[in-house]
Amino acid sequence: MTARMKRDVEELKAAGITPTLCIFRVGERPDDLSYERGAAKRAAAVGVEVKKVVLPADVSQEDFDAELMAVNTDDSIHGILLFRPLPRHLDNEKARQMLSPAKDIDGCTDLSLAGVFTNTRTGFPPCTAQAAMEILHHYDIPISGKKAAVIGRSLVIGRPVAMMLMHENATVVNCHTRTVDVPSITREADILIAASGQLHSVTRDYTNPGQVVIDVGINWDETKGGISGDVDFEDVEPHVAAITPVPGGVGGVTTCVLISHVVEAAKTHKNHI
Amino acid sequence: MTARMKRDVEELKAAGITPTLCIFRVGERPDDLSYERGAAKRAAAVGVEVKKVVLPADVSQEDFDAELMAVNTDDSIHGILLFRPLPRHLDNEKARQMLSPAKDIDGCTDLSLAGVFTNTRTGFPPCTAQAAMEILHHYDIPISGKKAAVIGRSLVIGRPVAMMLMHENATVVNCHTRTVDVPSITREADILIAASGQLHSVTRDYTNPGQVVIDVGINWDETKGGISGDVDFEDVEPHVAAITPVPGGVGGVTTCVLISHVVEAAKTHKNHI
Repeated sequence: MTARMKRDVEELKAAGITPTLCIFRVGERPDDLSYERGAAKRAAAVGVEVKKVVLPADVSQEDFDAELMAVNTDDSIHGILLFRPLPRHLDNEKARQMLSPAKDIDGCTDLSLAGVFTNTRTGFPPCTAQAAMEILHHYDIPISGKKAAVIGRSLVIGRPVAMMLMHENATVVNCHTRTVDVPSITREADILIAASGQLHSVTRDYTNPGQVVIDVGINWDETKGGISGDVDFEDVEPHVAAITPVPGGVGGVTTCVLISHVVEAAKTHKNHI
Repeated sequence: MTARMKRDVEELKAAGITPTLCIFRVGERPDDLSYERGAAKRAAAVGVEVKKVVLPADVSQEDFDAELMAVNTDDSIHGILLFRPLPRHLDNEKARQMLSPAKDIDGCTDLSLAGVFTNTRTGFPPCTAQAAMEILHHYDIPISGKKAAVIGRSLVIGRPVAMMLMHENATVVNCHTRTVDVPSITREADILIAASGQLHSVTRDYTNPGQVVIDVGINWDETKGGISGDVDFEDVEPHVAAITPVPGGVGGVTTCVLISHVVEAAKTHKNHI
């Protein structure tokens, strides 16, 4: 992916366009900062420019709206990474609707999500969901005709990745907080996407020996003093066919997908000039 | 539903607005005509006006676009029922995108489908999917924490009804043509939505004794010389807790939902004047 992006960025620069990502952040949440560092590093590696808009945690709705509109309409910016959830006093839903669909590189607008639901490739899918799919593709994991279980139903990962798996002909079940006896369901799956957002909540009894496990979780692990996934890796790893670690798994691919969306958006922008 | 609609229509008429449905049809497909008769009858029963735009089966793309734009921009029309799929020479996807989201009473535009996917109630859900949910609600069938299986993954019913069931906290699996051993999956479900579009394809071995079965199929049954569902009713009915018949089940509720969307659209129109 990186090699292809580098080539694309060079071609765009030769045509006078510098693909540019705007990181739009409110406050200084450690998760956001960590993701931001990864994205900036990946951007630098392929020649994508990064501009930052950082607003104070207590920014007014009015100022927030004005700043978002400014980057929406700034032609030198091709993609906007809007960190969410926003602080409670700001309107998350309004922000989602305000964001320019053309710059919605993390798939949060209605247009992008409709693209995921209808499989018509309008907009961009959420990066984490696409990252999980890229990993399955990279390792040639069979998807068509297989059973997949997704733990979690967020719009960032659970629901979109379930749709993307179904579009590739998997039979998919979405488990969530109201699902009764999750392990009895996930044990039946050939592919398990763990996206509950709960540290080490997926244990050996959720899995089966032939299973491929994608751990999407990023949780602070007090015991080890670092981040860990939703899967109890030590417990699960010896008993499944394959599993992605945390850190070092989905996260890095996600930032790579994010930057590839910026490059795509810049290409589309070029074709519309 | 009918009583509530009548009241709403009277109020709208008193305010000078006659809720109006436009039936937009290309050609004379028997399925379309049958659905159209049902919708017109239901509209008449509650006082909703119906206008028809009927184009020849070989209408040009240009003429089709012009006619659709005309009803899109006609303020006296509040909802458009666009029969699909269109004949092959016409662009289905373009038509779906062209339709005014405000008049998209059968939930086929990106905005409506994003509303179903995100559960934000923008636009209207596809009528058949909502009809299945209305039936479950009417009979107080428990959904939260239950297992649901949906056979079929179309945008008209399979995918949206799966989402709507999940939004009400069911754990949902979507089966489709590439699913291996469908009966082994559907047998586990408390609620089964049959939307394969295949006459009598769901037999007793797909079900369990506690199951509630919603048959969404409308197929021509050569043997009986009438319409039948996707479920082999004779075979399944004695062995499940409850089942909707075809005809006389989902179909009538669907036209009722359709007309209720026209009334809703007219109310929204009134509030925007």
